[in-house]
Amino acid sequence: MLTLDKIFNASVVLKDILRETKLVKANGIAPDCDLWFKPENLQITGSFKVRGSGYKIANLTEEEKARGVIACSAGNHAQGVALAASKQGIKSLICLPDSAPISKVEATKGYGADVCLVNGVYDDAYNKALELRDEMGYTFVHPFDDEDVIAGQGTIGLEIIQEMSDVDAIIVPIGGGGLISGIAYAVKQISPKTKVYGVQAAGAPSMFNSVKNGCIETLPSVSTIADGIAVKQPGVNTFDLVSNYVDDICLVTEDEIAAAILTLIEKQKMCAEGAGAVAVAAAMFDKLPIKGKKVVSVISGGNIDVTSLSRVIERGLIKAGRKSMLVIELVDKPGQLQEVSSIISEHGGNVTGVHYEQTGDTESINVCVLRISLETRNYAHVLEIENALQERGFRLQK
Amino acid sequence: MLTLDKIFNASVVLKDILRETKLVKANGIAPDCDLWFKPENLQITGSFKVRGSGYKIANLTEEEKARGVIACSAGNHAQGVALAASKQGIKSLICLPDSAPISKVEATKGYGADVCLVNGVYDDAYNKALELRDEMGYTFVHPFDDEDVIAGQGTIGLEIIQEMSDVDAIIVPIGGGGLISGIAYAVKQISPKTKVYGVQAAGAPSMFNSVKNGCIETLPSVSTIADGIAVKQPGVNTFDLVSNYVDDICLVTEDEIAAAILTLIEKQKMCAEGAGAVAVAAAMFDKLPIKGKKVVSVISGGNIDVTSLSRVIERGLIKAGRKSMLVIELVDKPGQLQEVSSIISEHGGNVTGVHYEQTGDTESINVCVLRISLETRNYAHVLEIENALQERGFRLQK
Repeated sequence: MLTLDKIFNASVVLKDILRETKLVKANGIAPDCDLWFKPENLQITGSFKVRGSGYKIANLTEEEKARGVIACSAGNHAQGVALAASKQGIKSLICLPDSAPISKVEATKGYGADVCLVNGVYDDAYNKALELRDEMGYTFVHPFDDEDVIAGQGTIGLEIIQEMSDVDAIIVPIGGGGLISGIAYAVKQISPKTKVYGVQAAGAPSMFNSVKNGCIETLPSVSTIADGIAVKQPGVNTFDLVSNYVDDICLVTEDEIAAAILTLIEKQKMCAEGAGAVAVAAAMFDKLPIKGKKVVSVISGGNIDVTSLSRVIERGLIKAGRKSMLVIELVDKPGQLQEVSSIISEHGGNVTGVHYEQTGDTESINVCVLRISLETRNYAHVLEIENALQERGFRLQK
Repeated sequence: MLTLDKIFNASVVLKDILRETKLVKANGIAPDCDLWFKPENLQITGSFKVRGSGYKIANLTEEEKARGVIACSAGNHAQGVALAASKQGIKSLICLPDSAPISKVEATKGYGADVCLVNGVYDDAYNKALELRDEMGYTFVHPFDDEDVIAGQGTIGLEIIQEMSDVDAIIVPIGGGGLISGIAYAVKQISPKTKVYGVQAAGAPSMFNSVKNGCIETLPSVSTIADGIAVKQPGVNTFDLVSNYVDDICLVTEDEIAAAILTLIEKQKMCAEGAGAVAVAAAMFDKLPIKGKKVVSVISGGNIDVTSLSRVIERGLIKAGRKSMLVIELVDKPGQLQEVSSIISEHGGNVTGVHYEQTGDTESINVCVLRISLETRNYAHVLEIENALQERGFRLQK
């Protein structure tokens, strides 16, 4: 059974593995409350996962340790298990679908694990891992539905209360529920008045639905940029703990997650992955009753690959009107491009790309289409440029 | 005269303004040495600048304080002065060229300054600031060539030595030279064996050239993504201090700076601006004799605007072969696009954009040009896809 003693014990056992992640004050991100961050994106391996797997592995018998551990993950859990095992001198094997990004495979190997690439998708890799466990006697380290794993994650709750005993609310991302189960259990024992809220991506609301309906539900599919919490079904233990100890769960949209990632970069100089940013998004977009309160949002991880980050930024810039695309119908006569350029530059727009098509899809045969990519200040600025062009007789396609 | 006492005094005076920026261990960024970061990107206002201006302002007479301060900057110095003045209950006026990005203007106002937008470029704003100083009796806060400002920046040197007394070398960005002057002076008094190295962008090597030639030189122009250190001429005081106390200065290229920004995001989950990343680039790209040494690179600031960040990431992805563009000549017959798509997908490339032009610039009239944007794993992956296309008879334009 999960006990507070166990979580205290975990915090002692993990001391040698963990980096200290002190609370950081938010920088004008949610002005309505006194917001702080628990930056587990700065944790070793780039996420909190090493806590749970580290404690799980520390509790194995000598015989189990000699045989080694196995896990199935393409993400933070893999790196957590790999590092925790290496630090304790234990062999680890991670099963991954062979479609996993090279960068994740390399990172996992880099922390000292052997990697078994399995033909197929996640479920195939999972089955292979169970098969190898049975065959070779490895211990399987579950990513969330395991008491020791949950106790390990719970050390975050202890750390928050130790550093800020008067915290009113803690906001925590939920995937399978291991992180919030540990935190909520720990916090409610020590500081029952502190609220613990969970956040899921609207594209993967498995725990949200399950708790609402009072029984474990399985989603047919999940889709979110917060891939670290894209889990179809909560665990049995975690469902129970969340039902008992978590005050409420809210959902955030993809755009809200992207905005939170961007804001953390701009205002906090910090990089979070999608899953890591959901608790920040919940505070930014007013999803929970935290006005005027002292609040800690847990940033659970920072392992976003740069390609995704570049897409998030792109999307954020377009949504904020800081990047835009004008499609202008031009009569095919000399000087038109020059005129458009000069109108844009008069209004302070910065052209980053031009594409000119002689064969437009318009009716008139000598009308061409000019596509211009722009850097702009904000959405009002885009409108200003559009209006200026229209005033000078240019037709814009919307 | 600059004295160690003054720098100690600054560290006491600044205590109430500053955030603590503890050293952070680098995460596999320069494996040949024991690398640490001094993360002044996490400092309040997002850069170290608040130290110098804070100390300068604290030393003003009551009469000077009553009149207020003035500065000219479109960047970190403006925000530093604004915050330092507000915290001490003093009025500040910042002159900016009216071409300055809205975001910078807003940030400066946000820290409590009045902003005077001056028609023209930086030099016009600078002259306006001097004019207003003379007219209104404001105190001008120089961004680097001022003893109090230098003493304020020097507190970083104290903090590094206090936290890590056995540090072998400290690497510091150089723009006008205020930061490194303060650090080098402080460090050489307390720990003479510690090397202090400077780094400039190859596109703005004003201090590098000046020290090499033994006299202050002025560059006709500067160009670098590290806009925070794009300074045409070192200060008189800073030139002297750097000549006397800095062990060596090296240069880094634009690509090296971009790579350092990207690496900090991927490996350290931290956001640095160009100027803030040069000391990291110097360690990554082996510009200094630090093999096997215990080294601290100062990350001087994190105020990169997201548009620039997006460009840096883009550039980094293309250079690493993780994003690429194929230009393919197609004979204008049905099924060609479909064939190309299927070859790319067979080899695991992810198409992110397609552009098909009927009027190519090739000789043959029925040849069209297909431009495909791709996400790829690395440069070898790009080559693999290119070869596969060529084997199936497609002509690639290089």
